[in-house]
Amino acid sequence: MAAPEIDALTQALARLPGLGPRSARRAVLHLLKRRETALVPLIAALTTVEARLATCSNCGNVDTRDPCAVCTDPRRDQTSLCVVEEVADLWALDRARLFPGRYHVLGGRLSALDGVRPEDLSIDALVGRVAGGGIDEVVLAMNVTLEGQTTMHFIADRLSSLPVRVTQLAHGMPVGGELDYLDEGTLAQALRARRPVQ
Amino acid sequence: MAAPEIDALTQALARLPGLGPRSARRAVLHLLKRRETALVPLIAALTTVEARLATCSNCGNVDTRDPCAVCTDPRRDQTSLCVVEEVADLWALDRARLFPGRYHVLGGRLSALDGVRPEDLSIDALVGRVAGGGIDEVVLAMNVTLEGQTTMHFIADRLSSLPVRVTQLAHGMPVGGELDYLDEGTLAQALRARRPVQ
Repeated sequence: MAAPEIDALTQALARLPGLGPRSARRAVLHLLKRRETALVPLIAALTTVEARLATCSNCGNVDTRDPCAVCTDPRRDQTSLCVVEEVADLWALDRARLFPGRYHVLGGRLSALDGVRPEDLSIDALVGRVAGGGIDEVVLAMNVTLEGQTTMHFIADRLSSLPVRVTQLAHGMPVGGELDYLDEGTLAQALRARRPVQ
Repeated sequence: MAAPEIDALTQALARLPGLGPRSARRAVLHLLKRRETALVPLIAALTTVEARLATCSNCGNVDTRDPCAVCTDPRRDQTSLCVVEEVADLWALDRARLFPGRYHVLGGRLSALDGVRPEDLSIDALVGRVAGGGIDEVVLAMNVTLEGQTTMHFIADRLSSLPVRVTQLAHGMPVGGELDYLDEGTLAQALRARRPVQ
C-alpha cells in the first residue's frame, strides 16, 4: 500500500492531540495532494519554530527568544504577576489581552496521584521572583479542579510571609451559563460570592 | 503573546483537515513541549516524504516511487483492475488487502455542479490501459453517490466495446447495519439484490 515513509508520517501526525489514525491519514493525503501550498509551508513553519524554540528562563513561557516577548514588553505592568499551570493557560489569557502584567508558568499542578511534588513545579522560582521585590500583586489563576485548587492554596501559603497581595480568579456563573444546566458546585460558588446589583 | 513564527505554525496546522484553530494550538503546544520526541521526528517524516513524493504514472497512486509499490508488486494479479475515485479510496481498499489486483485512480468524479468533465479525470488513460490488453476484469469501485454512480456508468459505457468484464461493488446492508436505522435507498438495494440463503 503506502510507502513506509508515508506510513511514518501518518504515525507522527497521529500522535498529535486531536488527531487519530484516520484523521492523520486524511491530513497526509491533504499534504500529498498540495505539495507546494501545504506540505512545503508546513515543513518551513515547523523548521523555523524548531530552530528558534526557547523556554523563557524568567517565566517559563515558550517563545522564540529568552526572555520571552511578554517579559520584555515595556508596556506591561511590572508590578503584577499572574501564575498559571501551563503555557496553554498563559496563551489563553493573553490571547484576549485580559491581563496587563506578566506571567509565571508552573509547568503543571500538584498531584499526589501523578506524583507531582512542589519541587517538580517552578514554585521556588516564583517565590524568588516575588521576594526579589517590585511585585505588588500575584494572581493565582489555577484551574478550578481539585489539583489546581490544592496547588493554589499551597502557593498562597508559600507567599503569605511576603509583602504582596495574593488574589485568585473569581468563581461563579460563566457567561452564557444557564442555571438549569450548571453543576451544583458552580451554583454554590456563585451564590456564596453574590454581590449587590449595581 | 506567541511569537509570529509560532502563530505561522499554528495557522499551517489549522489548515489540515480535521484540525481547527483550537486543536492546532493544542498540537503546537504538544510539539513545543516535546521538541526531541515529537517536533524533530515530525519534521523528519515530512521532509522525507516531501523529498521522495511521486505520483504513479501508471495508476495515479501517490507513493515514493514511480511506478508505485502496488503496480510493481509481482504477487499482484495483473489481470484485474480496480477503478477508484481518489487515492484515499485505493488506500482504504488496500489497507485491508481486499483486492488482489492493481488499481486505477481517476482523480475525482464527474460533476456538472463542480464542472468536472471526463477529460479532467484519467478516463482516457484507463481506457488505454485496458485496450493495451492483458486485463480480464475491471471493478468499478466508485462511491455510492449520484456523482460516483454517474461516473461509474460513464466509464462502463466507455469500456463496453473492449473485451473485458466490467463489474461494480455490491450494494446492500452494511455489516452491523440494522434495518430500522438504514435509509430507504440501502434497503431497496438490499432487497433487490437478495439471494438464496446458503
